[in-house]
Amino acid sequence: MVIVLGIDPGLANTGYGVVARDGTRLMALDGGVIETHPKLALERRLASIAAGVRELLDEHECDAMALEQLYFGQNAHSAFAVGQARGVTMLAAGERAIPCSSYTPQQVKSAVCGNGRADKEQVARMVQTLLALPEMPGSDHATDALAVGVCHLNGTPLNDAVAKAVQLAGSRA
Amino acid sequence: MVIVLGIDPGLANTGYGVVARDGTRLMALDGGVIETHPKLALERRLASIAAGVRELLDEHECDAMALEQLYFGQNAHSAFAVGQARGVTMLAAGERAIPCSSYTPQQVKSAVCGNGRADKEQVARMVQTLLALPEMPGSDHATDALAVGVCHLNGTPLNDAVAKAVQLAGSRA
Repeated sequence: MVIVLGIDPGLANTGYGVVARDGTRLMALDGGVIETHPKLALERRLASIAAGVRELLDEHECDAMALEQLYFGQNAHSAFAVGQARGVTMLAAGERAIPCSSYTPQQVKSAVCGNGRADKEQVARMVQTLLALPEMPGSDHATDALAVGVCHLNGTPLNDAVAKAVQLAGSRA
Repeated sequence: MVIVLGIDPGLANTGYGVVARDGTRLMALDGGVIETHPKLALERRLASIAAGVRELLDEHECDAMALEQLYFGQNAHSAFAVGQARGVTMLAAGERAIPCSSYTPQQVKSAVCGNGRADKEQVARMVQTLLALPEMPGSDHATDALAVGVCHLNGTPLNDAVAKAVQLAGSRA
């Protein structure tokens, strides 16, 4: 069984989803949101995100972390804020030598819905179906985190196959 | 004696400067750069920055951390990268309940040189003079970190006085 912690990083709301693959079967082991209060000092908010992520990594004995590769356009201010939250999340993995992978929103949508331009509603419905959840996740952040976890688990064999094919092609050239 | 850890955050180079004030006397206890290799995975680089910062906070029994408030203009990409490094630095303080303060480059220059538009050379010379260093710091990152430490120690009484005056004015209104 491979267990991945999917993360939708944010300072106020860090979505998380623990997804496991057992053979071809996917399942959700946990999902939710780590919230921090805007009135707390930034360093306390970051410490509370890191503590939450460490707890999840330890509790579920995660093999990998998967995060969305965020795109901010020209908004350097939000990029900076989210970067700080994402940094402490990845740190928690780095300290445990758990490898982190990043996926663009298009890669996630494509892995979950077969369409890189799928909308939020479609993603939520497919996450529910693929993980056989009795209901849709209650928060967009948790949905996005579960989706990136699914993307990692579904994408890994394909990425491995492509890498092997490229290597083989190289050795024959 | 008050001890502050000044930080110039960066993913490849995190400058640090440990500055102490004893009465009116300022002194540098330590200064340098935490470097991380670009070939390492991001989560490992962040873990190594955090480990370095924790070591400094513990070794010098720091009372506060001071960081530059960075401005990125329109460059969301660098903002995101530096944000991740800055996040893990502040986290190390947050976990120890050490308060963090941020200062704009103008505030730092003004506190160190009396001029918010001073150039790098002037800042380096004033850092050397104020801290009675036998020579100029060898790295721009270490200089910037020492400067923000000096800014915090020199700025705090002024900030306190202003805050008190404002409070007093408010209570009289």
